[in-house]
Amino acid sequence: MRKLKFVTTNPNKFLEAANFLAEIELERVDRAYTEVQADTLNEVVKHGLRELADQGFENFFIEDAGLFIHSLKGFPGVYSAYVNRTIGCNGILKLAGNNRKAEFRSVVGLYLDKKINLFEGVCEGEISGEKRGKSGFGYDPIFIPENETKTFAEMEIKEKNSYSHRARALVKIFSYLNPG
Amino acid sequence: MRKLKFVTTNPNKFLEAANFLAEIELERVDRAYTEVQADTLNEVVKHGLRELADQGFENFFIEDAGLFIHSLKGFPGVYSAYVNRTIGCNGILKLAGNNRKAEFRSVVGLYLDKKINLFEGVCEGEISGEKRGKSGFGYDPIFIPENETKTFAEMEIKEKNSYSHRARALVKIFSYLNPG
Repeated sequence: MRKLKFVTTNPNKFLEAANFLAEIELERVDRAYTEVQADTLNEVVKHGLRELADQGFENFFIEDAGLFIHSLKGFPGVYSAYVNRTIGCNGILKLAGNNRKAEFRSVVGLYLDKKINLFEGVCEGEISGEKRGKSGFGYDPIFIPENETKTFAEMEIKEKNSYSHRARALVKIFSYLNPG
Repeated sequence: MRKLKFVTTNPNKFLEAANFLAEIELERVDRAYTEVQADTLNEVVKHGLRELADQGFENFFIEDAGLFIHSLKGFPGVYSAYVNRTIGCNGILKLAGNNRKAEFRSVVGLYLDKKINLFEGVCEGEISGEKRGKSGFGYDPIFIPENETKTFAEMEIKEKNSYSHRARALVKIFSYLNPG
């Protein structure tokens, strides 16, 4: 069985990954890295991977995600965590206009055998009219994935993982590690 | 006369500084540097100074500023530029509730004779009810400094500089360079 470290300060993300990647022995490393202000998750993740690799970490991955609301030019996007800590879901509900289409994006960056690989996952959906549900974290109470009626926060981890951006990025890591 | 470089991609900021620091010969260097995601302007500025110094720049300053709305836990704060590019002044007007107290903060970071010095300027005020004025940039159309009725965007540069966070940080640089 493959062993990998998931470097993240977010216990919820680790839970989702461990649930999804049951065939991989995951170890959580609770360590922060510098997140640059950038227009894309890819840039944030690449910078973080290099910093951790420079510090001697090996065979690990990190993940960055964001909620991108189309009518708001992608806001809150790369800054989703900060926006959530300040104006939160209630602020997003005030800002979302008539066009509520949005997507969650996740980028998982893997540093394995001294090489960087990025894996992207996208989950399209829309912003709900009000907060619903208690599970998950972040914007889960206001995001409804396409072809669903429940928000992410109204789902168990397994159900969320059947849609989620993060699971869609993680499945690519899994295929990469277990080809064929 | 002292010569200093102001490293900024923002021509409006350079104009304000050149207008204010008339006794210093300012040269604009239109160059971007990495801005980290941080909780404070100080951290962003220190990181930028070090990066530019590592690249060989000498005797220069940079500036970072943000609008901090008290009832929104400081949002948009360190991410003011990004928030302005996405939800803009209209988004802020939607978010600002009954308590509209806010402040503009500026941090000027000087790298001179191989030493780092930071200078802070604050301008307290409030978010206006609607956008007014055409001058300035960023959130100027919705920010009214304390003891004023006009927004920053309704003022000429000289008048804005008599209140502004940026001018208040720059005056500290000026005193530092011209003591006594």
